[in-house]
Amino acid sequence: MASGLYMSVRRRVHEIVAVAGPGDTLSRVFDVSIIALILLNVAAMIFESVAVIREAMGSAFTAFEYISVIIFSLEYLFRIWSCVEDPRYAHPVFGRLRFARTPLALVDLLAVLPFYLPFVRMDLRMLRILRIMRIARLAKLGRYSDSLQTLGRVVGTKKEQLISTVFILLILLVIASCLMYYAEHDTQPDSFSSIPVAMWWAVTTLTTVGYGDVLPVTLIGRLMGAVIAVLGIGMFALPTGILGAGFVEEMERRKQSRCCPHCGKELPK
Amino acid sequence: MASGLYMSVRRRVHEIVAVAGPGDTLSRVFDVSIIALILLNVAAMIFESVAVIREAMGSAFTAFEYISVIIFSLEYLFRIWSCVEDPRYAHPVFGRLRFARTPLALVDLLAVLPFYLPFVRMDLRMLRILRIMRIARLAKLGRYSDSLQTLGRVVGTKKEQLISTVFILLILLVIASCLMYYAEHDTQPDSFSSIPVAMWWAVTTLTTVGYGDVLPVTLIGRLMGAVIAVLGIGMFALPTGILGAGFVEEMERRKQSRCCPHCGKELPK
Amino acid sequence: MASGLYMSVRRRVHEIVAVAGPGDTLSRVFDVSIIALILLNVAAMIFESVAVIREAMGSAFTAFEYISVIIFSLEYLFRIWSCVEDPRYAHPVFGRLRFARTPLALVDLLAVLPFYLPFVRMDLRMLRILRIMRIARLAKLGRYSDSLQTLGRVVGTKKEQLISTVFILLILLVIASCLMYYAEHDTQPDSFSSIPVAMWWAVTTLTTVGYGDVLPVTLIGRLMGAVIAVLGIGMFALPTGILGAGFVEEMERRKQSRCCPHCGKELPK
Amino acid sequence: MASGLYMSVRRRVHEIVAVAGPGDTLSRVFDVSIIALILLNVAAMIFESVAVIREAMGSAFTAFEYISVIIFSLEYLFRIWSCVEDPRYAHPVFGRLRFARTPLALVDLLAVLPFYLPFVRMDLRMLRILRIMRIARLAKLGRYSDSLQTLGRVVGTKKEQLISTVFILLILLVIASCLMYYAEHDTQPDSFSSIPVAMWWAVTTLTTVGYGDVLPVTLIGRLMGAVIAVLGIGMFALPTGILGAGFVEEMERRKQSRCCPHCGKELPK
Repeated sequence: MASGLYMSVRRRVHEIVAVAGPGDTLSRVFDVSIIALILLNVAAMIFESVAVIREAMGSAFTAFEYISVIIFSLEYLFRIWSCVEDPRYAHPVFGRLRFARTPLALVDLLAVLPFYLPFVRMDLRMLRILRIMRIARLAKLGRYSDSLQTLGRVVGTKKEQLISTVFILLILLVIASCLMYYAEHDTQPDSFSSIPVAMWWAVTTLTTVGYGDVLPVTLIGRLMGAVIAVLGIGMFALPTGILGAGFVEEMERRKQSRCCPHCGKELPK
Repeated sequence: MASGLYMSVRRRVHEIVAVAGPGDTLSRVFDVSIIALILLNVAAMIFESVAVIREAMGSAFTAFEYISVIIFSLEYLFRIWSCVEDPRYAHPVFGRLRFARTPLALVDLLAVLPFYLPFVRMDLRMLRILRIMRIARLAKLGRYSDSLQTLGRVVGTKKEQLISTVFILLILLVIASCLMYYAEHDTQPDSFSSIPVAMWWAVTTLTTVGYGDVLPVTLIGRLMGAVIAVLGIGMFALPTGILGAGFVEEMERRKQSRCCPHCGKELPK
Repeated sequence: MASGLYMSVRRRVHEIVAVAGPGDTLSRVFDVSIIALILLNVAAMIFESVAVIREAMGSAFTAFEYISVIIFSLEYLFRIWSCVEDPRYAHPVFGRLRFARTPLALVDLLAVLPFYLPFVRMDLRMLRILRIMRIARLAKLGRYSDSLQTLGRVVGTKKEQLISTVFILLILLVIASCLMYYAEHDTQPDSFSSIPVAMWWAVTTLTTVGYGDVLPVTLIGRLMGAVIAVLGIGMFALPTGILGAGFVEEMERRKQSRCCPHCGKELPK
Repeated sequence: MASGLYMSVRRRVHEIVAVAGPGDTLSRVFDVSIIALILLNVAAMIFESVAVIREAMGSAFTAFEYISVIIFSLEYLFRIWSCVEDPRYAHPVFGRLRFARTPLALVDLLAVLPFYLPFVRMDLRMLRILRIMRIARLAKLGRYSDSLQTLGRVVGTKKEQLISTVFILLILLVIASCLMYYAEHDTQPDSFSSIPVAMWWAVTTLTTVGYGDVLPVTLIGRLMGAVIAVLGIGMFALPTGILGAGFVEEMERRKQSRCCPHCGKELPK
């Protein structure tokens, strides 16, 4: 009997901590509350960095921090405890360990772990940034989860081509910064003191950010700078073209689930 | 008889204030005049801000302001009075209220309302910017209304994906500015005084604007800045790819109203 | 007989000044020489602006200028004289006038006219920039004329949508600069002295150029600046998406001249 | 017998220096080692430019340089010696000469040649940048070679259109810098001292880099600057649209190897 009660409580807890099924108000409230708490944590981290606000409300931030860690810790424990209800993680020990190794569970752990490690206490504030990754949960619920998953799927399909683009960007970066170093080092030994520093210029130019803190001034340096800036356009055109084709492909894949406009039969996916 | 005259006058006024039908010269003149007056109001607002022009022609601007408000107010009243000619707003009270709640009518009201509210008189000039929204009327007439509506439809179809992109941009923004704050705060306590200030840097980098007023100078800060600048390319590629696919989709939708090239039968839309 | 000789000389001159037919070496040499002379004129204009070069070689530039104008003038007269060989401009007076009104002939005239007008002699150098427009002739010959015409056709097909984008850009520009003026004018009366000056900031932000000479510093100004910078991404995505769909359309139009892959019959264009 | 041994050794050497076949571990190890050595050379060139590192580890860099050149030279000689195993380069003299003229072999030679030429010894460090081009070998092996070749093929297909875009960019650049020179030269004789200097501004604006070191300040200069910045958007949209259509085309070419969704028969490529 007690075991039956224990089982049904665990099943209910599992339902609540998982993405809410239709009509399950309590689970829905839980999902929304956790997301809200994550967002509040991010907001607290941002506003606490403002000296004026930190001085005025320092203790409130500390209290909120403690409360958040307690809630996130309990939530994590509930997830680990109840995950065995999921057939994939049914084994009481190995199932739970496998569940704890899933990316979402790892992120949940990292979001609270720094608080319990005294030797990193001094860097605690910085590590709270890990909590923003918990926002990945948002991709599982809400109105925009479909669109987010579409974006993710398109980027995933084109992953190899996008990585190739980054690879080309890196090669260009090294060539550009080496050439620029040899062109400008003698004229501006401070601005172009070494190739790694010239790389900073090359990144800001190839991405067309163009801060203007490091600049070529020699004729040959400006000529090469012009060529690199124009190649920077190509560094935009490649990934944009790749993703554009990816979105067209995605669009056509969806269309193909409809019937053939010629013969009325359903088309194979 | 008087009522018949009243009705026919109201019908004519309704024709004039509505988008001109073909061959209705007076209505056409009215449409063009109102658009011209809106554009002149915008121009007046722009030029009045120049100190030299304001001092030389201050009274002319005030006179033009009074005249404009009178014309816009009359136009608004005529629209409200005659809208009952439209079957959708036929009821003399509720029809008019429903009409007054349409976006275009609300904008028309907001364009003159501030002038009549004494307590906002001091901010009057700023609120005149609402008048530029009246330019939305332009989307209903003229050669380019088709194109504008196409743009609007494509953006509308892809709204959810574009909002998801903005959502990803916001997440990146928060992560980038937090990391940058912790990397640069000790070295540049003035430039990166708080996370909200670091966000300003992150926005100008992720959008590749790159003003150069706030800059990372540490090695780790520049490394992260380079990664964020490259991710900024992705922030261009995603919406561009989405809209590109949207325009291809729109193009194909138009083509589908033609006949099937294989069997000659008309294709279903 | 004399008339016959006159006619055959005129026909030959017309062949030479027109785009070279296959195997017509003299006409080909003429085409290439004129393009080379135009490019040399542009190069001369660029290098003459450098003080060091101008002082060293001033008289050479003047001599080259005289020679160029003489050659371009003779070329123009030959074109006008021989154009009646073209059936479209056959009438000796009205045909020639109609020919002189074509864009290419007008540009040819404008490239030499300033030299003969004494009252604009002082601005002569600046007006030489009109000669660069003669480079439009390049689009008629050479390996890349096909590609250039494809680009022109795609941009032409999407002209209305692109103009609509520019229209949206202008509206955004006015709204952004007005808002920014009211937000920053009190804090930075010098940088944001008037709305037209704020427009300069808005242009550099919406196009993501971001010089950094004018910058928002207030909280509200930076918030609006961030939103405008993000909208600037949209201002890239719209025309890119439009042109992307245009190029896909062009690609499909070319493909349609092939046979139907299903039934082997030729597809209608 | 000796000749047979010589032949089989040469065949084995040829197998090792060529891209590894499946299961050929030694050849695989050789490929990876050479790529690793190239990357180490690039890294050494980058880090040697940092004064602190150079002073601390100068002799280590020199030693690494000697070892690298010896290995690269031996590799080059082995490639030349064994290339006759390839039927395309079978002739002992002319085959080897033809092989030595292939781009990859030329790059391999240029990567070591400067070391053996005493009169360029002083520029040796700069010429080492040629070694980074050896990284082109990477495109022949590894997981991403497919994606890199797809990128190369799409860019290759659209080469003429992309060159036309660069041509349009150059025309715009010349026009923009000439106009800007005449507009700003009198007000800022230092910043816009000549048209070539104005071109530097024009490049940074048309590519939307926007360093902000050279800026228009006159009304007419800013108006033209605004137009040029907007045209810069078009300079992004054209190549992006071209490449986008190229990737869609590539995608469709791949799809066409599948069966027809209507009749189930295989479609012709």
